[in-house]
Amino acid sequence: MNDHTYQFVLTGLGNIGRTFLEILISRGDSLRRRYGFDLRCVGVSDSSGVAYDPAGLDIAAIVALKRGGGRVSALPKHRPDLSSAGMVALSGAAFLLEATPTNLQDAQPGLDIVRAALRGGSHAVLASKGPLVLAYAELAAMSDLAGPQGSPALRFSGAVGGALPTINVGRRDLAGATIDRAELIVNGTTQVILEEMAAGMGFDGALAAAQAQGIVEPDPSLDVDGWDAANKLVIFANAVLGQPTGLSDLSVAGIRAVSAEELRAAWDAGGRISVVGLAERQGDGRYRLSVAPATLGPEHPLAHMRHGEMGAVFYSDIIGRTTIASLEDGPMGSTQAMLRDVIEIAGRA
Amino acid sequence: MNDHTYQFVLTGLGNIGRTFLEILISRGDSLRRRYGFDLRCVGVSDSSGVAYDPAGLDIAAIVALKRGGGRVSALPKHRPDLSSAGMVALSGAAFLLEATPTNLQDAQPGLDIVRAALRGGSHAVLASKGPLVLAYAELAAMSDLAGPQGSPALRFSGAVGGALPTINVGRRDLAGATIDRAELIVNGTTQVILEEMAAGMGFDGALAAAQAQGIVEPDPSLDVDGWDAANKLVIFANAVLGQPTGLSDLSVAGIRAVSAEELRAAWDAGGRISVVGLAERQGDGRYRLSVAPATLGPEHPLAHMRHGEMGAVFYSDIIGRTTIASLEDGPMGSTQAMLRDVIEIAGRA
Repeated sequence: MNDHTYQFVLTGLGNIGRTFLEILISRGDSLRRRYGFDLRCVGVSDSSGVAYDPAGLDIAAIVALKRGGGRVSALPKHRPDLSSAGMVALSGAAFLLEATPTNLQDAQPGLDIVRAALRGGSHAVLASKGPLVLAYAELAAMSDLAGPQGSPALRFSGAVGGALPTINVGRRDLAGATIDRAELIVNGTTQVILEEMAAGMGFDGALAAAQAQGIVEPDPSLDVDGWDAANKLVIFANAVLGQPTGLSDLSVAGIRAVSAEELRAAWDAGGRISVVGLAERQGDGRYRLSVAPATLGPEHPLAHMRHGEMGAVFYSDIIGRTTIASLEDGPMGSTQAMLRDVIEIAGRA
Repeated sequence: MNDHTYQFVLTGLGNIGRTFLEILISRGDSLRRRYGFDLRCVGVSDSSGVAYDPAGLDIAAIVALKRGGGRVSALPKHRPDLSSAGMVALSGAAFLLEATPTNLQDAQPGLDIVRAALRGGSHAVLASKGPLVLAYAELAAMSDLAGPQGSPALRFSGAVGGALPTINVGRRDLAGATIDRAELIVNGTTQVILEEMAAGMGFDGALAAAQAQGIVEPDPSLDVDGWDAANKLVIFANAVLGQPTGLSDLSVAGIRAVSAEELRAAWDAGGRISVVGLAERQGDGRYRLSVAPATLGPEHPLAHMRHGEMGAVFYSDIIGRTTIASLEDGPMGSTQAMLRDVIEIAGRA
């Protein structure tokens, strides 16, 4: 691979977006040395607006601004005339990195942002889930997943459990096998809450413990009521099981009805309770999809996960049982997942 | 991806090679439907010789022959004038599938077979380990791993623990992160032996139990003395850690000195003993590599693996801890790994 500088735009400067810029600052040299390419940021956005400069933005200044509570609209290269989607289209950048907060009503602004990227030939790397949950088929058809030869890439390996490689292992390492059953335990917040409550903590204290880890959705009910797990199962069903799926195709139950007694009993038996996103292959080849708290017995491969650890188990016909788990440090896992997607796409060049 | 028929040659018709042909027979339609391509076998070999027909061989007849104890030299298209490497070169096939038994003295005939494939532009998919252990740098330089643009692919995702995606997860899902420590528990035979011995069985009975699973090397000492685990760690170090490594760079200890008392004690404590291939990053960035039995305490992410299950743990700087495990049914895992490599390469077309 030749030495190459790829331009990118980053939409969303919350935990994940900010951390991505920080990783670039601290590891840019290593990226160049190991993978033979550079990344130059030409555009960023937060909810206040857009900054854009085809000559490159000062990402250290952006990180400092956001750390100090500042907004993109205060940046020298602020472009009040551009929406995020407009900035993406104008940039013609090699990569869009999309990390705006998930919005399940209409997946905006993320959905328009991703559409603009793919339409313009930019590869799209998503940490956000909304666009995939609400419009997977549309976006896949504009990308290398289901579109014509030469379409830009669409990747989202960090959208189903941070750095847990659910999508990558499901699509790539199970290729050729048929998945009979998949169990996704991919909501870190409820992992922490259920673990703390099993140890005797009340719900509010347990939620605060999860928030301290920086992993809770801005609206905690997304985690607590199972919607985050449901989003991820929808993405998994589309991308790995090849089954066109929307949120209404799942039954969804959160953790509010789980009692302290049930939690204690599962723990004492050597297992635990987790929110499980379940896909079960039926006789006709379609998958039944559901999200609900479930008791994992002591022999369950994911029974011993701790501290917000996330995991998945795939039962497939040729292989048997494949297990993956990821114990992460806050939002950095999702950030690394975006970086690995960029590296993968760049490596095809 | 357009519908396409790819020609392949298969060297080695032991458990893995034979199972690959059986998978093709039973799942050929599904492959076509899901991935848009066909595979046509134009050449096979076993230790008796080579059969070759550019119009395609009858793989059902080959499977039946081998199941009945027959040899390739009895096939109608037997070519006594061709070596395996010669057949590969002559074929110009899209894929070489290499599944001859591992030979650590000179890695032949596998090494010449792989050289012939890559030199001729055939993608090489290896279940065998010898060529990678003895000549990784040479082969990588002839392939897309380290060679010029347009070089054929070299893949071996099944060479480090059957279907356990050690190489794929290490190279792709940890991309961008720095691995500080990796623990590979990738010898199924010793997993079974140590588990049976902890339950009170003697060594010979435990070995027989592993052989019944079809996973023991033709020479069991490769498993028992740690050489199979060492081979896999060498491949891992080259392919994932980017550290040129040979067998002499590792300290290697097998399981002969592990006592029944130690096994029992580890089990009673809620953990177990496994042969661990260990890579530890040193201050200068190089990895110290060793293979030895180690006690896994009850909190170790792989402490609860059973029935020959294999696994790996990666500790990396950006992510944290990534765990993978694979519970497989005999040699089918290695076979699926070859198939997924073919699917991956075909998908780039």
